[in-house]
Amino acid sequence: MTFAEARAQFPVLERFAYLQAGSTGPLARQTIAAMRAEDERSLNEGRSGQGYFDRVLGLRVEVRDELAHLVGVEAEQVALTASTTDGCNLVLAGLELGPEDEIVTTTDEHFGLLGPLHTSGARVIVTSPDPKTIIAAVNKRTRLLALSHVLWTTGQMLPVHELREQTRVPILVDGAQSVGAIPVDARGLDFMTISGQKWLCGPESTGALIVADPTRLRVARPSYFSQETHEPDGAFEPWPGARRFDPGWLPTASLSGLLTAVRSRPEWCFTRSREMAENCRQMLRAAAVEVVSPQERATIVSWRSAEPAKVVAHLEEEGVMVREIPKTGLVRASIGWWTNEDDLERLINGLKS
Amino acid sequence: MTFAEARAQFPVLERFAYLQAGSTGPLARQTIAAMRAEDERSLNEGRSGQGYFDRVLGLRVEVRDELAHLVGVEAEQVALTASTTDGCNLVLAGLELGPEDEIVTTTDEHFGLLGPLHTSGARVIVTSPDPKTIIAAVNKRTRLLALSHVLWTTGQMLPVHELREQTRVPILVDGAQSVGAIPVDARGLDFMTISGQKWLCGPESTGALIVADPTRLRVARPSYFSQETHEPDGAFEPWPGARRFDPGWLPTASLSGLLTAVRSRPEWCFTRSREMAENCRQMLRAAAVEVVSPQERATIVSWRSAEPAKVVAHLEEEGVMVREIPKTGLVRASIGWWTNEDDLERLINGLKS
Repeated sequence: MTFAEARAQFPVLERFAYLQAGSTGPLARQTIAAMRAEDERSLNEGRSGQGYFDRVLGLRVEVRDELAHLVGVEAEQVALTASTTDGCNLVLAGLELGPEDEIVTTTDEHFGLLGPLHTSGARVIVTSPDPKTIIAAVNKRTRLLALSHVLWTTGQMLPVHELREQTRVPILVDGAQSVGAIPVDARGLDFMTISGQKWLCGPESTGALIVADPTRLRVARPSYFSQETHEPDGAFEPWPGARRFDPGWLPTASLSGLLTAVRSRPEWCFTRSREMAENCRQMLRAAAVEVVSPQERATIVSWRSAEPAKVVAHLEEEGVMVREIPKTGLVRASIGWWTNEDDLERLINGLKS
Repeated sequence: MTFAEARAQFPVLERFAYLQAGSTGPLARQTIAAMRAEDERSLNEGRSGQGYFDRVLGLRVEVRDELAHLVGVEAEQVALTASTTDGCNLVLAGLELGPEDEIVTTTDEHFGLLGPLHTSGARVIVTSPDPKTIIAAVNKRTRLLALSHVLWTTGQMLPVHELREQTRVPILVDGAQSVGAIPVDARGLDFMTISGQKWLCGPESTGALIVADPTRLRVARPSYFSQETHEPDGAFEPWPGARRFDPGWLPTASLSGLLTAVRSRPEWCFTRSREMAENCRQMLRAAAVEVVSPQERATIVSWRSAEPAKVVAHLEEEGVMVREIPKTGLVRASIGWWTNEDDLERLINGLKS
């Protein structure tokens, strides 16, 4: 697939410099076509019968396989969720921590992780997102490291495997800004979340939770999909593997759309998005913009602004979609493998105008 | 809206005697059209920008209002969920019960309720679905009645308001088989779940949880939608009202589709579905089928069968969609306001052939 072919999949790119995959990615024609085909089938043939349920269960198997493959784990280690928030809540509810326990996190996490951490009842230790500081915050009471693979604020990449190895503390990795944006190997991580609607360009309310050892996490939020058999009082035998954590039904159209989106990615996607993100940083620096450039960085590009909300609104008027990171004075652009030089020029011109 | 007009909304009814709304309802053309319009908009205009987010939040307000109106409560008492399972899990995780506490439920509940009950850690007391037996099972340790408004097995209706009043124990009502099927007044109930994809004929993975007093239930599963403000360690100020329990994003297409489905219901829907369910019971009895006829009954019609799986498969071949209730020897037909005499004749003929 050439770059021109790959880019042409996304009609929104004909209108906007769409730099918002860190919130919600662009949708490809074939993704929407796959969703529409499922919706038409449901309309005309109904959402019932043996064929229908076999099809739904088959799609769940395919999505699980595809996402497992994407991050290098076994399908038995993948639970299908509706979001990263979902995944974080599943882990924290399942770990059953108390006020004697500590969790180490960073100053730059999203509420989708922070909310579940707080709700767990454990003491939440917040450190700067510096590997040394994170390691120094670990002590005998630490039960979990909970942090992003790529920070949603600055695009900084954390060495999650090294942190796991050096601290020997179980780690929950928020993969919302890494999976689909950069190569990810989830092996060696205890828990990792995937968002379907961001860098994977999938339908809304899709995602996954990787659980390295499903037998060691309590099923805190059972659904019909969790149990192989159950008793009249609700006691149940969970299915083998991480499907026991599946929190519920996902629309057939969403499953099919996500599958199509993930399978439509060009082989060169990671190389290109990395290059384009670096180009973006250079162009911003050349335009005297105060870019944040962490030493280890991914495809999110942020810069400081005295009036971030105004900048975002002005850029939107100019057809450039970016976002503000609240309370930080940062504006953020998300650079994908579909981004071209023209998008970046529109961003720079918009900032100058 | 005449009956012919109302029925003509559902293409699946041209093919099948679709008697499966207790699992997943038929979809109307305008519901799918509304979903497609949202998907097309997302495809062409992207899923970002002020207009987009205003639109999404506006749709959430509209759906909340519509569902509140449907069951007679305030919009501030409605959380938007993805399922009844979701709602049950939210309640049980929030109540923080322990092994000294008891929950009274019935023999005829779905795992979507039973799983959360078991996981709560409380002792689950299972009684027959008889109001007297339920009341007799309540004691000083009972913290919750948790049961269906309409049993998914037999269509029996439980007097949930009377049970609440007589026991003075908080009640969680599984409304999956009542809301949309029969008139429902959720006032006076502590918690009630709504399923969007069943009797409301909405998109998959939609629903709601009614919480009479949102300040008295812990937010056990926070999402970005839960908090008005938050601290770096995740401590947060919840929004006023039940939106604090919203477990996450719902696809724009799903919100719009559900809204369309709920608004497309004819005024006479409850009268007609009740009549047709009674017709169905009479016709089955006339055909010497052993119908289950609870004294208080709704729009689910079940009958005993020596070989329920075989009967369901045979009926499907004959274009009649019903289901088996596992481990009960029951086959179940769900009768909606869209059901006509021809559907019922096809069912009877299928059973005879």
